[in-house]
Amino acid sequence: MTARRTGRRPGNPDTRDAILAAARTAFAERGFDAASIRAIATTAGVDPALVHHYFRTKEELFRATVAIPIDPAELLPRVLAGGRDEVGARLVRTFLGVWDSPVGTAAVALLRSAVSNQWTARLLREFLTTQILRRVLDQLDLDPAEAPLRGSLVSTQLAGLAMMRYVIRLEPVASATPDTLVATIGPTLQRYLTGPLDQS
Amino acid sequence: MTARRTGRRPGNPDTRDAILAAARTAFAERGFDAASIRAIATTAGVDPALVHHYFRTKEELFRATVAIPIDPAELLPRVLAGGRDEVGARLVRTFLGVWDSPVGTAAVALLRSAVSNQWTARLLREFLTTQILRRVLDQLDLDPAEAPLRGSLVSTQLAGLAMMRYVIRLEPVASATPDTLVATIGPTLQRYLTGPLDQS
Repeated sequence: MTARRTGRRPGNPDTRDAILAAARTAFAERGFDAASIRAIATTAGVDPALVHHYFRTKEELFRATVAIPIDPAELLPRVLAGGRDEVGARLVRTFLGVWDSPVGTAAVALLRSAVSNQWTARLLREFLTTQILRRVLDQLDLDPAEAPLRGSLVSTQLAGLAMMRYVIRLEPVASATPDTLVATIGPTLQRYLTGPLDQS
Repeated sequence: MTARRTGRRPGNPDTRDAILAAARTAFAERGFDAASIRAIATTAGVDPALVHHYFRTKEELFRATVAIPIDPAELLPRVLAGGRDEVGARLVRTFLGVWDSPVGTAAVALLRSAVSNQWTARLLREFLTTQILRRVLDQLDLDPAEAPLRGSLVSTQLAGLAMMRYVIRLEPVASATPDTLVATIGPTLQRYLTGPLDQS
């Protein structure tokens, strides 16, 4: 099947934008797993090869739609290396490392957009689920019946940390050192990931 | 000192709006404690008695500026009654009770606005700090050196819960029963409030 052409050529910035717009719609409407490069190319009016020319992989295209300049596939092995007993602390430290860096500005913008825009919210949800949580949960060898709840509990704590530290700027969390936050919030993530879930 | 008059009279909806606008500015710029009814009345061009006519107390005026139709002074005694050992669980249950009720719609709107608007962010920060956290921390008789960090850690977890459950709608947290969330998140709040803070 040949994709519909609209005269867009490689190297044309409009082409890249058209692919991104089509991808954003596809990922938000169908989710990361169900969206196909072929369908995105068809919507954008380009050949699938051109999508791969601009964005090497489906993951890379997805990261571009949410404007996230980090690659979880590179960061997460650091979090997961060194055994599961310290994964909570390492997750907080890695998270703060990203948000405290220049990349944090883009992350704050994404969070703002996700809260005010249903489509960005869907994209962020897909990003969290398929690019971050799935990878962490797979590596920790958790009970599949509990893994989704554990992952979403981790998300609540990290999203709230980002919100209060970087957006609302509530003190003293806004100016706390990474060490303080690792020591206080690390055990929470550790319990959500590997501890007993029901402590009632 | 007589406040400057601009011909606004009691019963005029413009008067109430003018007071609210002046209060919003005052609370965001000066904070809840430093903002005075007298100064707000002067900015709005009305007599201070008129501010009390529309909004009985400074707390009530503040809640009106953030459009929060609940009164923490009524809710929090329920959370704090029954001893400090179960305060984490009761805090989660009360929080979900508010957000799962019709009032939750206003709360989601406030959260959205706080994330996209610096002024609403300041108002929300002031509301959290002076109307909720201060009351909870006072009642729990905590070490004053640790209380602010404990309070802001609680805020990170509750803000993230609201964000993921009601705004981003990440599953399974979005559809989890209150019992599940009380059992899993309650212990986190309990540790933030009364447990050892440094577990590293």
